[in-house]
Amino acid sequence: NLYFSVVDDRGLSWSRGAAEEAEAVAAISCSGHGRAYLDGVISGGGGLPVCECNTCYGGSDCSQFSPSCSADADGGNPLFLEPFWRKRAAASALVVSGWHRMGYSFPDGTSISPELERHVRRLHAAVGNAVTEGRFIVFGAGSTQLLNAAVHALSPDVPSTASTGGGGGGIPAGVVATAPFYPIYELQTEYFASVDFQYQGDTSLWVAGGGNSTSEEKNVPDGKTIIEFVTSPNNPDGKLNEAVLKGPNFKAIYDRAYFWPHFTPIPAADDGELKIFTLSKLTGHAGSRFGWAIVKDEKVYNKMLMYMQLNTMGVSRDTQLRALKLLKTVMAEGGGRTIFDFGYQTMKARWEKLRTVVSRSKRFSLQDVSSHYCVFSGRVRESSPAYGWLKCEREEESDCYGVLKAAGIIGRGGSVFYATDRNVRLSLIKTRDDFDLLVDKLQKLISAEQEEEEEGGDGNG
Amino acid sequence: NLYFSVVDDRGLSWSRGAAEEAEAVAAISCSGHGRAYLDGVISGGGGLPVCECNTCYGGSDCSQFSPSCSADADGGNPLFLEPFWRKRAAASALVVSGWHRMGYSFPDGTSISPELERHVRRLHAAVGNAVTEGRFIVFGAGSTQLLNAAVHALSPDVPSTASTGGGGGGIPAGVVATAPFYPIYELQTEYFASVDFQYQGDTSLWVAGGGNSTSEEKNVPDGKTIIEFVTSPNNPDGKLNEAVLKGPNFKAIYDRAYFWPHFTPIPAADDGELKIFTLSKLTGHAGSRFGWAIVKDEKVYNKMLMYMQLNTMGVSRDTQLRALKLLKTVMAEGGGRTIFDFGYQTMKARWEKLRTVVSRSKRFSLQDVSSHYCVFSGRVRESSPAYGWLKCEREEESDCYGVLKAAGIIGRGGSVFYATDRNVRLSLIKTRDDFDLLVDKLQKLISAEQEEEEEGGDGNG
Repeated sequence: NLYFSVVDDRGLSWSRGAAEEAEAVAAISCSGHGRAYLDGVISGGGGLPVCECNTCYGGSDCSQFSPSCSADADGGNPLFLEPFWRKRAAASALVVSGWHRMGYSFPDGTSISPELERHVRRLHAAVGNAVTEGRFIVFGAGSTQLLNAAVHALSPDVPSTASTGGGGGGIPAGVVATAPFYPIYELQTEYFASVDFQYQGDTSLWVAGGGNSTSEEKNVPDGKTIIEFVTSPNNPDGKLNEAVLKGPNFKAIYDRAYFWPHFTPIPAADDGELKIFTLSKLTGHAGSRFGWAIVKDEKVYNKMLMYMQLNTMGVSRDTQLRALKLLKTVMAEGGGRTIFDFGYQTMKARWEKLRTVVSRSKRFSLQDVSSHYCVFSGRVRESSPAYGWLKCEREEESDCYGVLKAAGIIGRGGSVFYATDRNVRLSLIKTRDDFDLLVDKLQKLISAEQEEEEEGGDGNG
Repeated sequence: NLYFSVVDDRGLSWSRGAAEEAEAVAAISCSGHGRAYLDGVISGGGGLPVCECNTCYGGSDCSQFSPSCSADADGGNPLFLEPFWRKRAAASALVVSGWHRMGYSFPDGTSISPELERHVRRLHAAVGNAVTEGRFIVFGAGSTQLLNAAVHALSPDVPSTASTGGGGGGIPAGVVATAPFYPIYELQTEYFASVDFQYQGDTSLWVAGGGNSTSEEKNVPDGKTIIEFVTSPNNPDGKLNEAVLKGPNFKAIYDRAYFWPHFTPIPAADDGELKIFTLSKLTGHAGSRFGWAIVKDEKVYNKMLMYMQLNTMGVSRDTQLRALKLLKTVMAEGGGRTIFDFGYQTMKARWEKLRTVVSRSKRFSLQDVSSHYCVFSGRVRESSPAYGWLKCEREEESDCYGVLKAAGIIGRGGSVFYATDRNVRLSLIKTRDDFDLLVDKLQKLISAEQEEEEEGGDGNG
C-alpha cells in the first residue's frame, strides 16, 4: 500500500518498526478503564497484548463493570499521574537502541548518570524542597533500596563472631520509628538481620519524657547509635514529621517520598544530613524503581555507594535513561510547574470530594491537615496527602478495617502501620476509577448511617 | 524542507520525535572507536551528546589514538557483543511510552513479567543449559543481587540478640568458595554482615581430604549449614567447576553467568537446586542489571522473592521490558543460533590469536581449556573462556600483574581472586580495540623476551 504523501525530510530507518509497534499497542482500546502494554501477555489470535483493566473492570476491552466488586484503596500505585503522561505522549516517549550502554560504567567510572544527577539537582532547585549544593547524590532502585543502604551506612561496623583480626568493635545500632509508620522500615531491618543493626521499636522508648516531644536521649548505652526513620510527609497520615530524637547518638534518615507539591506545601528546603527521594510519588513511575539519596557526609555517601555496588552494581542504566527522559519532560514545562499543578489540582479535588462525603458522618472522621506557606507556589496552602487516615469514631468499632471491608472498601488497617485498626489508610493516588468507586462506596455507607439515625438508630426498622 | 516522497501508509504520531532523536544520536560519528548515547553528557554548542571513546582513543570523534596508553584487560565489560546489536538495530530497538507500567505490579500481583519469564524458559529450552520445567524463577538486578538473595534464602533464621519471642534458633550458615573465585562472594557476604550467615573461607577447610576431591563433610558442627558458591564456568579460569562439598549440611549456589555457548560447550543441562544466570554475559547488556535464579525448592524461592521485595520491590519494569525485547530478538533468529554463533566465533578467533602469541613464549602460559560434547551445537567443542588466566613461569616473577603492568597491560591480579599474583586475569570480552591492543602489547613483550633469549639472556647487550 504505497502512496504519495507530503512528509518532512527526516525519514526514519531502524527505529520505525519499534515506533509502529509501540503506537499500535498504545492504540488498543481498553474503554478508558485499562491500558495495554508492550510487554503484556499476548492474546490468542491477534498477536497483540491484552488490556490490563482497572480494578472492578473486566472483559477483553475493560468495558464490563462489576458493581458488586469492592473498591480497592489499599496500595500506593500512583496512577493518578497517568493521564498527565498520556497527554504528553510525544514529549515523554523514549527510543532505546539495542546497543544502549551495554557496559557497567559511565565515562567517569561510576554507575551514576551525570546527566540524570544534573537533572535531579535542577528539579530540587526548581521545587525548593531540598538543598543539594555541596551534597552527594546516590541512586537506588526506588527509595526501598536506599532506606536499607542508609541504615547500613549509618551503623557502626560490628565484627561478626567469625571475623578474625581487628576492626572498630562497637555495638549494633538500634533502628526506630514513630508509629504510625511505613512498615518496610521494620520488615527490612529484620529481614536483613545484620550484626551491625537491629530494629528496636518505637522512638518513644528513647525519649526522656516518653512522649512525642523532641528530647534528649535516655537509656542509650555508651557508644550506641540510634537511627530514626522520619517520614515527612508521613505515610500513612500525611503529617510533616520532624525527628523526635536529638542528640549526639541519634541519626535521622528522612524519607521524603511524599515531599512534593502534589501532596504538601513545601515550607522550606530540607537541609538535613540524609534525605531520600523517589520517582514513584513524584512522576508516578513506581514501576521504574528509581530513587536517590542526598547525603552530606562523604563517609556515609561512600558507604552507601559501596552498598549499591555490592547489592546490585548500581541502578539499571535502562532505568536511568527512562528517569532522565521523564525528568527532562517535567523540567521542560515551566520548570516543573505543570506536573505539580496537575498533581496538586488532582489531589485537592479528590480531598474536597472525600471531605464532603465524610463530613456528613459522625461515625467516621479524617485526619486534620495543616496549612503552611509553600515556597514553591508562593502562597499558603493546605496539605493534600496521598492517603486518607480514616478513623471509626464509635467506641465499639475498633476494627475499622473490618467495618469498611463489610461495606466493600478495602483499605489498609492501621495495625499494618503499628497503630490500631481503629484507623484505616485509604489510598487517594490510584486511578480515577479507583477513587470514584471509593467515594461511591463511602457515600453509600454514610447514607446508610444517616438513615439509621433518622430512624432513631434502628436500621432494621 | 518539505518534499514529495514514496512512503508507506503507516504514519507515526507521538513516537516520531523520540525516534528521530535516537537516530540522530546513533548517527553521531565516533570513528568506529566509540559511541554516543542518548543520555550522554551534552557537548558545548550542538546540543548533542559527546562520543564516549574506547580506551586509548580520544578527541571529540574518538579518532585520536594514544600509542603510549596501556591496554586495559581488567574489567568484564561484555562489549564483544556490541557489533551484534548494532547490526540488528531495527530488530532490537525499543520504544517506551511515557505511561509504560507506572504501577508496582503485573496483573498477577507479582513484580515479575510473565512474558519475560516465558522467554527465559524458551531460551533455556533452546540452549539446553538449564532445566526449568517444574522450577521457580526469580528475577534480580543482575546476578549480583541474586547471589546475596540466595545466601539469605539458604541460611537459617538466627534470632538476633535483641529479638524477643521464639524463632527457629540455629547457628549462622558458613559461606565458602574454592580459590580462585569471583571476589564479590566474599565482599558481599562480609559487607551485608548478617546474623544468619558468615563468610568462612575456602571450601578446603571443610573437605575431609583437604584437597580438591568431592568429599564428605568434616568439622561441620551439628545443625550448621555450609553454602558453597560454585562458578561454572569459573571466573577467572573458565573451568567447569562442580560443587566440592557434598552432604546433608551442604548447599550449593551455582553461578552460571558464563554457561553460554559463547564461552563453553554445554555438556548437559544444569539440573541442580539453585542456579543463577544473567543477561550480562549472554546478550552483553551488563548495564541493564538483569539476572534470574532458577530454584527447585518452593521455600527457598519464597524467601528469595521476599528478599527481592524488601530490597528493591523487584526489578525495574523498564529493565524487564528491555530484557524482553533483547530476548525476543535473540530467539527470533534461529532460536538463539545467531547470537551464539556470533559470540562463539568471536571468542574462538580471539583465543586463537591470543594462543598463537603466548605459545611463542616460555615466560608466560595460559590455562588449559577442556573439550566436551556440546548439546547445543551437537559436536565436541573446545572452551573459549571469557578470560585468559595468564601465568608467569619464571620463578622470580611472582608478581605477574606487575610484569604485565610494566609492559603496558592492565590485567587483574590473581590475588583479587584469592589466588596469588603469579596469575593475572586478562579480559577477552571487551571491545575489539581493547583486545587488539592487548594482543599488540603482549606480542611486543614476548618479542622482547625472544630477543633477550637470542642474545643469551642479556637484553641490554
